[in-house]
Amino acid sequence: MSNFESDGRQSEGFESAWKDYARRTEDALTERLADDGQVPESLHSAMKYACLGGGKRFRAMMVYACGQLAGAKPERLDTPASAIEMVHAYSLIHDDLPAMDDDDLRRGRPTCHIKFDEATAILAGDALQSRAFELLASAGWNPVSDNYRAQMVEALARAIGAQGMAGGQVIDMQSAGINLTVEGLQGMHEMKTGALIEASAVLGGLASESLSSNSILKLSGYARRVGLAFQITDDVLDYISSSEQLGKRAGADQRMNKSTYVSILGLQQARETAENLASQAIEFLDALGDNTAFLKQLAKFVVSRSY
Amino acid sequence: MSNFESDGRQSEGFESAWKDYARRTEDALTERLADDGQVPESLHSAMKYACLGGGKRFRAMMVYACGQLAGAKPERLDTPASAIEMVHAYSLIHDDLPAMDDDDLRRGRPTCHIKFDEATAILAGDALQSRAFELLASAGWNPVSDNYRAQMVEALARAIGAQGMAGGQVIDMQSAGINLTVEGLQGMHEMKTGALIEASAVLGGLASESLSSNSILKLSGYARRVGLAFQITDDVLDYISSSEQLGKRAGADQRMNKSTYVSILGLQQARETAENLASQAIEFLDALGDNTAFLKQLAKFVVSRSY
Repeated sequence: MSNFESDGRQSEGFESAWKDYARRTEDALTERLADDGQVPESLHSAMKYACLGGGKRFRAMMVYACGQLAGAKPERLDTPASAIEMVHAYSLIHDDLPAMDDDDLRRGRPTCHIKFDEATAILAGDALQSRAFELLASAGWNPVSDNYRAQMVEALARAIGAQGMAGGQVIDMQSAGINLTVEGLQGMHEMKTGALIEASAVLGGLASESLSSNSILKLSGYARRVGLAFQITDDVLDYISSSEQLGKRAGADQRMNKSTYVSILGLQQARETAENLASQAIEFLDALGDNTAFLKQLAKFVVSRSY
Repeated sequence: MSNFESDGRQSEGFESAWKDYARRTEDALTERLADDGQVPESLHSAMKYACLGGGKRFRAMMVYACGQLAGAKPERLDTPASAIEMVHAYSLIHDDLPAMDDDDLRRGRPTCHIKFDEATAILAGDALQSRAFELLASAGWNPVSDNYRAQMVEALARAIGAQGMAGGQVIDMQSAGINLTVEGLQGMHEMKTGALIEASAVLGGLASESLSSNSILKLSGYARRVGLAFQITDDVLDYISSSEQLGKRAGADQRMNKSTYVSILGLQQARETAENLASQAIEFLDALGDNTAFLKQLAKFVVSRSY
């Protein structure tokens, strides 16, 4: 935890700490996915392909950072961080399917249904969702008390269901070709991506078994704003970046004729909105003790990143 | 429970008790799915369409019967029964997709992706899986202790993941056009359908909070054999029935060129195998007290049913 305690550290120190945790996440995921050769091999390969393809590990980082703020050791956070990343990977597999966003590339690699086939991709997503809940509920994998394991399952399940991530994806698809208001766009993103980011913070906090429900609510408030700021910055980066930089076809939303923060607010105001959200997020941390330096840097980084 | 206690009752009494529990399941599911008008409406409608379309409710019946054997009141079993049926409904939605079995009809009605669209169907399945775990983990919906709620989540999640239901579906698809041995076919069915039926029995037993782990294992052993007998009888009925009787295109497995118990063993030996399994299942009940009449009838019914 000492890595995260200096408020005056340089952003490269922050980024290197993030990289360390991204590596930790990759190891934790590897440990929690089946060994090579398990039957059916194609399914396990597809699950690994989708989970272990790198990525920013932003959600895992949120689990680790919020858990450590509350005094949890990293070992206690490996399972919730992995569960969240498995759910994120499942959602990307399904979002990329021909019936949904129909994307062939993700992070510069063929999407799961291109690398394998559509049926295997659908089932790999399904099985990743199940595995996430299995890990969270298991006393063997999740060393918190029964009470907190059940709370973690419930919080994650609610965040990713019809009122959360899955519902947000439906609204996103139904919005193609429609000019959304900024409130409509925000509501969609709060469900589609925000709810899982919030759940990441909540699971980190719950894993500590030391926070009041009021402090958990503060973490939620922080994460909701950081999540939205992250999404707006994604829209900004998608707008200004070329395919090479992002590793996916840039401007996919424009191609699908979808509203974005940039299309509604313009580039400059989208950026300012993200910065305001990051500031609001940081205010939520005031009530959460002295160990908030990393979460503050995280909020600032989210809106200043270039990738 | 007194409904189930008479060993000498007629099969019509058994079937009427089953119908009562199927109705109870329908009510429990309705209560646990979102009210009309919830956003996104299409997703909630698709979830309801898939869950409330009738069906035998065999898995819910297994939850109720095993829970009641162990002394649990029906109110204690409504949530696990609903969670199991939601997972079953999700699996049918995804199995019916064009990328998988590509079925247009199920129980005489258009399948979910025909009635809605493919994206909505995929996401309705995803959200039903999440909702099942949310309900099981929630103290508000599942009135058993933390310890048992976490165990229920873990048992269900393991049963439906890559080593269970989802893995079985992959193996089933990969088996099209291949002549399986009877062992290969059994292994596939134990994953694809058996694991969820076993989980139904286990969740019923766990909900009672009164069974030893040895008794839970006996319930597993019973349910595994009943599940396999159920599947073999499905193959038999699929072989001999017309579309009208089953409400789906009969002979779908033949059309896909898939091995079935009838294609491997022939009609007569398939029937005998199912009957032997039902007898073995009943032997597991000997160690489970005096209240096993209904589960015995259930095992017998599974192999003598004509629908």
